[in-house]
Amino acid sequence: MIKPTYEGDFLFATNQPFQLVSGKSLQPVALHYATYGTLNERRDNAILVCHALSGSARATDWWAQLFQSPENPEGVFDLERDFVVCSNLIGSCYGSTGPAAINPATGRAFGADFPLVTVRDWVRTQALLLDHLGIETLCTVIGASIGGMQAIQWAIEFPHRVARCVAIGAAPLTAMGLALNHLQRQAIFNDAVTGLATARAIAMLSYKSAELFDERYARRPNRNGEDPMRSLAERYDIAGYLDYQGEIFTQRFDPNSYLVITKAMDNFHPANGYESETAALARIQAKMLMIGISSDWLFPPGEVKALTERMQAAGVNAEYAEITSDHGHDGFLAEPHSLLPLIRQFWSAAA
Amino acid sequence: MIKPTYEGDFLFATNQPFQLVSGKSLQPVALHYATYGTLNERRDNAILVCHALSGSARATDWWAQLFQSPENPEGVFDLERDFVVCSNLIGSCYGSTGPAAINPATGRAFGADFPLVTVRDWVRTQALLLDHLGIETLCTVIGASIGGMQAIQWAIEFPHRVARCVAIGAAPLTAMGLALNHLQRQAIFNDAVTGLATARAIAMLSYKSAELFDERYARRPNRNGEDPMRSLAERYDIAGYLDYQGEIFTQRFDPNSYLVITKAMDNFHPANGYESETAALARIQAKMLMIGISSDWLFPPGEVKALTERMQAAGVNAEYAEITSDHGHDGFLAEPHSLLPLIRQFWSAAA
Repeated sequence: MIKPTYEGDFLFATNQPFQLVSGKSLQPVALHYATYGTLNERRDNAILVCHALSGSARATDWWAQLFQSPENPEGVFDLERDFVVCSNLIGSCYGSTGPAAINPATGRAFGADFPLVTVRDWVRTQALLLDHLGIETLCTVIGASIGGMQAIQWAIEFPHRVARCVAIGAAPLTAMGLALNHLQRQAIFNDAVTGLATARAIAMLSYKSAELFDERYARRPNRNGEDPMRSLAERYDIAGYLDYQGEIFTQRFDPNSYLVITKAMDNFHPANGYESETAALARIQAKMLMIGISSDWLFPPGEVKALTERMQAAGVNAEYAEITSDHGHDGFLAEPHSLLPLIRQFWSAAA
Repeated sequence: MIKPTYEGDFLFATNQPFQLVSGKSLQPVALHYATYGTLNERRDNAILVCHALSGSARATDWWAQLFQSPENPEGVFDLERDFVVCSNLIGSCYGSTGPAAINPATGRAFGADFPLVTVRDWVRTQALLLDHLGIETLCTVIGASIGGMQAIQWAIEFPHRVARCVAIGAAPLTAMGLALNHLQRQAIFNDAVTGLATARAIAMLSYKSAELFDERYARRPNRNGEDPMRSLAERYDIAGYLDYQGEIFTQRFDPNSYLVITKAMDNFHPANGYESETAALARIQAKMLMIGISSDWLFPPGEVKALTERMQAAGVNAEYAEITSDHGHDGFLAEPHSLLPLIRQFWSAAA
C-alpha cells in the first residue's frame, strides 16, 4: 500500500555570508525545509516544490492534492518513488531567515530593515540546501505563482540541475499586477496591521475571478444578517468574506515579510542578471511545462503563453497548457482534477 | 455660428423637509446646478446630465466632448437647440447639501453623520429642481457610471417625464464591484486622508483596463528615476501614476462624500422600492439606449447587455450598443468618437 511518508521539518543553516543580488549579504542564513519520501541511492528522485507568497515548507499543508495517498489516488507525488523537498523562502515568516530574524549588526530583529531579496536569491539559497542534501539534479522543480517564478528561475540559473520544470500561473507581472502589489504595500506602509488585512483583501480579489464571486456571493447581504441598505458599516456578503480573509491573515503572516516577498514578485523577470531575456531563456536545458489558468487576471494566461513562446523561440523544449476554470489565479489550488493529469502526461511524455 | 452659452451656476434650495429612502430627512436641501443654453417656450428642449462619482454640476468641466462648439463640431449638445441642466448630487462636496453642510440638529457639519442616500434620492431631488425650473418633461436624461444609474432610475421613477434615456456603463454592481468599493471605504475608515488616496488609486484600477496599463506603463520604472530593484520605496511607473492620482484627489474631494456616494452606488438596483425588478422596469416609457464598454471590468458590458435584455423582456423600447475600447470604464470619457455617433443615431431613430 502507498503511504505518504512525512520525514519531518528540518533547519539548514550556514554561517557563510550569502551574497544577495542587491549587493547586501545575509549571515547566517537558515532555511526551514520539509521532506517527504526517501532520497534513492542514485539520488535522482528529488522533486523540489516551490511555495507561493504565503506558503510554508510544509507542502502537504497547502498542496496536499499533489501527494498520492489512499484518499487521493490521483496525486502525482508517489512517495514510494519520489523524494519531495520544500523549503521556506528567505524573507518569509515560517522559519527561514526573514524580518523576524536577528540582525547581527544591531542585535535586534531586522523588521523593516530586512534587505530586498529576489527570486534569484531564493533559488540560490535552495541550491545550497540541495548541495547539503547531496542532490545534484532535480527530476522536477514545480511551483505556482511566485513558486512558478522560482521553478523558471531554477531552469535558467542551474540548467544542468533541472530535468523537468512545471510552472503554473507564472510570468513577469504586468502593469496591473504591479499596481495591485503596490496598493497592498502602500496599505501596509500606512498601518502595518490593518494594512496587512487590506493587502490580503486586495490580494484575494486578484486571486479569484469576477465569475467566481458572482457565483458565490452575488449581491447577497452579509450572511450574518447585516443590511447594506441600512448603514455605512453594514456589508454585502463579498465584503464580509474579504474582511474575514484579511483578519485571519494578520494572525499568520508578518507585514514585513509581505513587503519583501511582493517586492520580489514585482521584480521577477527572466532577463534579470543576463544580457537579455533571450540569453537567459536559451540557457534552459529542462523540459518545461508552462500552465496558464483561463480566468487568472493576476497572471493572465496570455502572458504565460507568450513567455512559453519566447522560450520556444530561444530553443527551449517548452510546452503550454491551459486550465479552464472560474477560480482565477487560485485555480492551481482549486482545480486538481485539471492540473494533475497535465503533470502526469508531461512526465510520461518527458520520461 | 453655434456658440455654447454658459448660463452660470445656480443654487436651488428648499426648506421643505426632504424624506430620504432611508427614512431620515434632510432640511434644508440645497442643489448646486449649472445650465447651458436656453429653455425654449414649449419647455421641451431640456437635457438632464447626471454626473458620476467625483463629478460636479459643471458638465462642461468633465464632459466637454458632448457640447458642440466650433472646436468640437462633433458634440451632440447643440446649445442653439438644447437646454442642458446638470446638478450636483446630495452627499457630494461640490455645492449641494452633503457632509460639509450644517446638521441643524447639532449646529455643526454632518461629517460622518450624513445620512445614507440612494440613487432614488438623487433623482427625486433633481425632480424638485426641474419642478422649480418649470420643466415637466426631459427630452433626454443622460449619464455614465453612477450618472447612468440615475438616468435609468429617472426612467423608472418618473416614466412620464422622460422621453429618451442614455445610460453608459451602468448596471447594478457585481460582487467584484461591491468588493472594490468596500475596500475603498475600508481604507477611508482606517484613515480619512491617506485612505481617500488609496481609495482613489483602487478606483483608478477599476476605471481602466489591464491592456491600457500595459500600453501606457508596462514594467517601466517610475519616470522620476526611481529603481524598483533598489529599495522597497522605489516604484514602477504604474505605481507612481496611481500614487499621484490618489494624492491630487485628496485635494479636491471629501472622504465622507466618497463614503456616501460609493455606498449609493453599491445599493443601486432597479428593483429597489418596487415589487420586483420586472415591475420597476415595466414602468419605463422612455426610449432607452444602454451602452457598454468592451474593456469595462467595473461594469462589465455583459451586465449592461443583460439589463437591457431584462428591460426588453419587460416591454421596454431599449437597445444595447457597445463601445470597443481599451480604456475600461473610463471609455465614456476617453472615446467620444465612438460615443457621440451612438447618441446622434439614437436621437435620429427616436425622433
